[in-house]
Amino acid sequence: MDTDINLRRWLDTSLPGLVDELEKSINSGYHIEGGDTLSISGRDEIYKILDTILGVLFPGRYSPHKPLQKELHYFIHDSLRHIGAKLHRHLDEIFTYYCRDRKENCDCRQRVDSIIRILLTSLPKIRRDLIEDIHSAYDGDPAANNFDEIVLSYPFIEAIATHRVSHLLYKEGVPIIPRIMSERAHSRTGIDIHPGASIAPGFFIDHGTGVVIGETVTIGRNVKVYQGVTLGAISPFDKEGTPRRGQKRHPDIEDDVIIYANATILGGKTVIGKGAVIGGNTWITESVPPGAVVYSNC
Amino acid sequence: MDTDINLRRWLDTSLPGLVDELEKSINSGYHIEGGDTLSISGRDEIYKILDTILGVLFPGRYSPHKPLQKELHYFIHDSLRHIGAKLHRHLDEIFTYYCRDRKENCDCRQRVDSIIRILLTSLPKIRRDLIEDIHSAYDGDPAANNFDEIVLSYPFIEAIATHRVSHLLYKEGVPIIPRIMSERAHSRTGIDIHPGASIAPGFFIDHGTGVVIGETVTIGRNVKVYQGVTLGAISPFDKEGTPRRGQKRHPDIEDDVIIYANATILGGKTVIGKGAVIGGNTWITESVPPGAVVYSNC
Amino acid sequence: MDTDINLRRWLDTSLPGLVDELEKSINSGYHIEGGDTLSISGRDEIYKILDTILGVLFPGRYSPHKPLQKELHYFIHDSLRHIGAKLHRHLDEIFTYYCRDRKENCDCRQRVDSIIRILLTSLPKIRRDLIEDIHSAYDGDPAANNFDEIVLSYPFIEAIATHRVSHLLYKEGVPIIPRIMSERAHSRTGIDIHPGASIAPGFFIDHGTGVVIGETVTIGRNVKVYQGVTLGAISPFDKEGTPRRGQKRHPDIEDDVIIYANATILGGKTVIGKGAVIGGNTWITESVPPGAVVYSNC
Amino acid sequence: MDTDINLRRWLDTSLPGLVDELEKSINSGYHIEGGDTLSISGRDEIYKILDTILGVLFPGRYSPHKPLQKELHYFIHDSLRHIGAKLHRHLDEIFTYYCRDRKENCDCRQRVDSIIRILLTSLPKIRRDLIEDIHSAYDGDPAANNFDEIVLSYPFIEAIATHRVSHLLYKEGVPIIPRIMSERAHSRTGIDIHPGASIAPGFFIDHGTGVVIGETVTIGRNVKVYQGVTLGAISPFDKEGTPRRGQKRHPDIEDDVIIYANATILGGKTVIGKGAVIGGNTWITESVPPGAVVYSNC
Amino acid sequence: MDTDINLRRWLDTSLPGLVDELEKSINSGYHIEGGDTLSISGRDEIYKILDTILGVLFPGRYSPHKPLQKELHYFIHDSLRHIGAKLHRHLDEIFTYYCRDRKENCDCRQRVDSIIRILLTSLPKIRRDLIEDIHSAYDGDPAANNFDEIVLSYPFIEAIATHRVSHLLYKEGVPIIPRIMSERAHSRTGIDIHPGASIAPGFFIDHGTGVVIGETVTIGRNVKVYQGVTLGAISPFDKEGTPRRGQKRHPDIEDDVIIYANATILGGKTVIGKGAVIGGNTWITESVPPGAVVYSNC
Amino acid sequence: MDTDINLRRWLDTSLPGLVDELEKSINSGYHIEGGDTLSISGRDEIYKILDTILGVLFPGRYSPHKPLQKELHYFIHDSLRHIGAKLHRHLDEIFTYYCRDRKENCDCRQRVDSIIRILLTSLPKIRRDLIEDIHSAYDGDPAANNFDEIVLSYPFIEAIATHRVSHLLYKEGVPIIPRIMSERAHSRTGIDIHPGASIAPGFFIDHGTGVVIGETVTIGRNVKVYQGVTLGAISPFDKEGTPRRGQKRHPDIEDDVIIYANATILGGKTVIGKGAVIGGNTWITESVPPGAVVYSNC
Repeated sequence: MDTDINLRRWLDTSLPGLVDELEKSINSGYHIEGGDTLSISGRDEIYKILDTILGVLFPGRYSPHKPLQKELHYFIHDSLRHIGAKLHRHLDEIFTYYCRDRKENCDCRQRVDSIIRILLTSLPKIRRDLIEDIHSAYDGDPAANNFDEIVLSYPFIEAIATHRVSHLLYKEGVPIIPRIMSERAHSRTGIDIHPGASIAPGFFIDHGTGVVIGETVTIGRNVKVYQGVTLGAISPFDKEGTPRRGQKRHPDIEDDVIIYANATILGGKTVIGKGAVIGGNTWITESVPPGAVVYSNC
Repeated sequence: MDTDINLRRWLDTSLPGLVDELEKSINSGYHIEGGDTLSISGRDEIYKILDTILGVLFPGRYSPHKPLQKELHYFIHDSLRHIGAKLHRHLDEIFTYYCRDRKENCDCRQRVDSIIRILLTSLPKIRRDLIEDIHSAYDGDPAANNFDEIVLSYPFIEAIATHRVSHLLYKEGVPIIPRIMSERAHSRTGIDIHPGASIAPGFFIDHGTGVVIGETVTIGRNVKVYQGVTLGAISPFDKEGTPRRGQKRHPDIEDDVIIYANATILGGKTVIGKGAVIGGNTWITESVPPGAVVYSNC
Repeated sequence: MDTDINLRRWLDTSLPGLVDELEKSINSGYHIEGGDTLSISGRDEIYKILDTILGVLFPGRYSPHKPLQKELHYFIHDSLRHIGAKLHRHLDEIFTYYCRDRKENCDCRQRVDSIIRILLTSLPKIRRDLIEDIHSAYDGDPAANNFDEIVLSYPFIEAIATHRVSHLLYKEGVPIIPRIMSERAHSRTGIDIHPGASIAPGFFIDHGTGVVIGETVTIGRNVKVYQGVTLGAISPFDKEGTPRRGQKRHPDIEDDVIIYANATILGGKTVIGKGAVIGGNTWITESVPPGAVVYSNC
Repeated sequence: MDTDINLRRWLDTSLPGLVDELEKSINSGYHIEGGDTLSISGRDEIYKILDTILGVLFPGRYSPHKPLQKELHYFIHDSLRHIGAKLHRHLDEIFTYYCRDRKENCDCRQRVDSIIRILLTSLPKIRRDLIEDIHSAYDGDPAANNFDEIVLSYPFIEAIATHRVSHLLYKEGVPIIPRIMSERAHSRTGIDIHPGASIAPGFFIDHGTGVVIGETVTIGRNVKVYQGVTLGAISPFDKEGTPRRGQKRHPDIEDDVIIYANATILGGKTVIGKGAVIGGNTWITESVPPGAVVYSNC
Repeated sequence: MDTDINLRRWLDTSLPGLVDELEKSINSGYHIEGGDTLSISGRDEIYKILDTILGVLFPGRYSPHKPLQKELHYFIHDSLRHIGAKLHRHLDEIFTYYCRDRKENCDCRQRVDSIIRILLTSLPKIRRDLIEDIHSAYDGDPAANNFDEIVLSYPFIEAIATHRVSHLLYKEGVPIIPRIMSERAHSRTGIDIHPGASIAPGFFIDHGTGVVIGETVTIGRNVKVYQGVTLGAISPFDKEGTPRRGQKRHPDIEDDVIIYANATILGGKTVIGKGAVIGGNTWITESVPPGAVVYSNC
Repeated sequence: MDTDINLRRWLDTSLPGLVDELEKSINSGYHIEGGDTLSISGRDEIYKILDTILGVLFPGRYSPHKPLQKELHYFIHDSLRHIGAKLHRHLDEIFTYYCRDRKENCDCRQRVDSIIRILLTSLPKIRRDLIEDIHSAYDGDPAANNFDEIVLSYPFIEAIATHRVSHLLYKEGVPIIPRIMSERAHSRTGIDIHPGASIAPGFFIDHGTGVVIGETVTIGRNVKVYQGVTLGAISPFDKEGTPRRGQKRHPDIEDDVIIYANATILGGKTVIGKGAVIGGNTWITESVPPGAVVYSNC
């Protein structure tokens, strides 16, 4: 009890100074996260928008209750409107903030409308691509018993569906939001696909934990990848030691390639040719011709 | 404001057509997730049942409030009843749906009762196995200070407890549900154990991220595994290129084996003999005799 | 319907015996989780305290609503008080329980006050270290566009912020709680840092999935690490086969070292010298001199 | 502890029979609430629809967060769509059920669409009436400081807004739902207005607890009523003692009437003439001419 | 901003003393609500138990989701068990507390088991009585269209169902809990029935707001009551001015009586004879013979 | 299905116009609830602050979990701080809004600090008054068994505790918030006390439904009131028919008065003298001398 009273007294006398010190630390030096104008900092809003988008692509998969067949029309319409309204608010805020913050001559705010239109009208195409991805998963995994099992339980589906949405926003120049989306999928699946990566339909990642796909990767149709595969940069820095921001740093993977578990493929000039098979545990920093089969020398 | 009004008008005129297109895409071509009869699509129901089962095995570990000692009896009885009632509903639905969907001559619905009885009466055995697993963790990890720490914080416990439940349902032929259970553990722990794998008690996985254990793996008593280990197939396809569904594709691990981090062991004919030690970063596609020690040649 | 009635009758007749068996199993043999006195077993309480601490370090990042600028002062003061009160309760319980449980001559309960004071007064220092970590991330990753993106989306931030808190509690001898904190970060990020590891500021882990950093690791300033890196023990056992609890088992990493993806560095006597570069997929069990560059021989 | 075990044993042996008895009681004799087809029984769905409607009439008043000015358009559109979709589902269910239940020759299901259209297109008129009601409240209550205070705190507003919605549905012949709506307002405000009552705009009830307004009441413009006023039937039964279902049983109140606290006005032939003032605690079963002032003789 | 800082400083300096003053006020003089041993103080637990009981009496009426027909058996069994377990905990606590508090020679704790058995085995009888009450409502109210409407929307149902449960607990001598149950119904319906009142089946209260039924009231079969009726005491005090605790203070109402709105019937020796009709607004302090009709003299 | 499609098409074509009409109606004519600057419109924030205040007065009574004895100090301190911070935000907003709205020369914003200080430092006094109220309830109601029962179940306690807080804010000139607080208590208890009424300690209302206490009422010490009592105005209008805003309109009740059920006492010049007893159902518009006993002439 005595110690308890001592703690109370210490809190009463010490907290005022400690609070001032922390407040000063937050307000000066480095003030993160956009002051009062930017409401995304909790990220939950972004997750909700993403879930609404994913819910249109696979109704019922990302919500506790599945819409009945006869409610489907209303469900889709409501969802699209909701996406439009919520994205409008957040894109408006985020473009306003980053323009002000950077003092750039910014007409980006005018692009908010255009981005929403592009996203909504792209959803049928994104869904078609995802159906191809599901076919690839079924054809590529002997453990898959039916499409439902894939949609309901494969982590890859969450990763690629999220990526196809975040990649579209990335291409339209939306700051931060695509990365927040991708990192949620990363956290849940262990699959880390940068929103910048360009991935054709028919893609499949089995198991997936530890997969890393870098910002400037391109991947062709019907490519299969296993757990622990890295498609990365040889070095993040150029010869002067400065980060190679905005440059092509990661490999190109052509159609029909298979990359087995824990293979590492690095470099912006590295091309894995159409139909090549890259064995597990390999380390590749140069191009591989079409149809080649590369084994690990371990 | 102008742009805002433009967006509104665009939504008013464009959404009706877009909704029709998406609805058609969902209803035709590929209609996933069992129409109105299958209520599991949100997966939350399955997670709740699993948490109730895990809650009986480790009371308080999977619920915000721990039952008091004197409430334990009521808590267990309530939980078992709840498991029975909820599983009955979902198994009934899921067997009905997959029978109808596949037009197979199905007496599986009659098995629902039997499956529930088997699961409930197996819980004491599952708990005994898990206690052995905890002992293995304590004996195998110098960082473990006590059993409580293992149960409360080791990701391995969630993975193996979930597996011992999902494996039982898998053996009884339950569709989809075992995989949904296993993939939740995979998402939370980075440990990917297929429900089909057969694992004896006294098992321990340290750290665990990136571990993959395939559908037809068997693991003996007192086996220890570290992060990044793959127990997989050499190829998912046979010589004709069709997926090897239902075949033995993954290795057998005998009693007392230790497999260090990032080792890869592949193939349905590969047997790791009793007491063998497989070093880190190794790549193994052939059997290893009992007692052998295999180092990486990297 | 018949089967349904059969199940009911079976539950009515079989559950009483089954409940007794499970209750006995829980109460005897191994009774986990501290009886009625220890309320942490659900772990949610620990997560809430951790989120409050992280919320003081990055206001708004770990709560759905961000405090307005003018509310910041109240927010911090409220948070610190809340941390103090909640930690007091749980530390008091946990020290009481483990003292009683172990029958050790325990004056640890008197340390509760002191631990809370140390934690609260350390928060400004922890925040300064984290700002250095963010600078390292920005300098080390070409894909990072600004600090906000790092704080809002990089999994590394959650891992290192959690670690800096759990490490402080670990050093003060708090049982179990630090590990519960660290394992939440592990689950969400795939980065497994033991609370015992000592990490200087300016640290950065890119991608992160599969990283394992052991209990007795030390890491110097401005070290960079990539996905899949293990800083581990050569063996958890000494020559007699007993776990090497409490001994130095893991390597020391000096300032300015870079360790690329999937490198494995093992052993308590292994030192990676200042400024060394460890290539991807390497396997290292002996010390590396300062400035050295080590490539994989695969 | 003994008693505790006794109770367990009693539950184990007695519950099976008790459950059978209760199940039989629920399934036979009187089986309420529409079997599996009628999902309104929990009433929460009806409350949510009502709150969405009220939210369109007074944005922000019935939801935790108020829409920003620039979000208002999206908010209204979303709300109207949501009302349409949800009402469609519940009206369809409820008409189907009551048709089946009553074996009447029912084309009422075809009326679902029409009812929804009438409700939605009536909302601007309902809002205009409510604005008149608010003006009456401001003019009639010296304690009212401004319109905001009335909208935010007067129980009358909830009662009359709910009534104007439930009355519309009542007129369209919707079963049960209007009464569920009205009774929520009754529970919260103590004001019991039957959905059948017809009330012109400019109505005001001060304090309101205990007010009862019967099914066949009509009320003219700018009528003011105080707490405890009953507008009721002389007797619910006709001379033969059977309930007078569907007959005119309650009074008509003409324009500009004021009825003070605890007055009771009964009978289907009773008319309170334009501009009359009915004093507190009066008991009136015959018509009162226009402009008359009636005092209590107590 | 200045004022803001002033407030902060005032809080820092003034709160410690203010907290001490309030803590002292709570701990001394009058210390309510049973210290740490009594967990009911938030009342939510009692409400949950009551809702579970009401849910067994009218499945689906008091829970968001209605059990399907085929789930009814499980639902009832689960509910009864849940009621048993939760009541056991709270009755045990509350009897322990009030015994300790009052220093009475208490064997009441032994009665906990017996009370639970009596409550559970009485549920079929309580349900039968409630069905009679519903019949009375249908027969007595011309505005009632069907039984569903009564069960789903009449406030009287909540009041009488709650009363039939709380009265049973009152008769068994349970402290406080019956009153907490009754007051929830009072709050929601405006009908204030003391748990002590004894009410035969076939009871009906129309509208109900303002009805007060005192502790020692008895009511016979098929009695109908309207809004604002008081069945009360002439005076709470005896001639010496001390409260007449435990004495008969309220009237007896025999079978088939009708009491119209706002009638007041007072006194422990007042008997309203079988079949009497009491008019609205009457004030009665003496007995009324069977079959009499009493009108208001106002 | 046809009708369903018809409805969809109608929504698609008709909603845009309907939304415009409603938006215009909300934005023009009468624009309620303070635009974007006033966040109280959902009222939930005000309820939370009130619950925190009531929670300090009766710890545990207004929150699901009761603070343990040893946590009491932290609980009170946290609560007071929370009240200060939250009130500061809302008072600041509301004073700013009403000043701007009314164009009055307003220094009221400077009063925010002062109001918070007055409220917090008044809490011990408010608690002392409430303890007196509880004593009055125990002495005045034979059905009350102990203080706990009164605090946990009597609606009067919620009404008077809320009133003592809202009255303090009313006296300080806070707009709207006091009325929102009082009306919550009115909704839950049926007791309608205007925040302006001045009530000395030792007050008790039994049953309470239908009680109305007007804005300019004053009530002395140890006054007891029963259900349905009105302390009101003779007329809300002066001779010219304009509302008598800000004038004394309601009676004064001196010490030790008892007012039985459904009595009505009206008028700003009406004084009920010390110790008078007002019988049930009386109608009083003139003063009553001290010690008098007034019966109903009905």
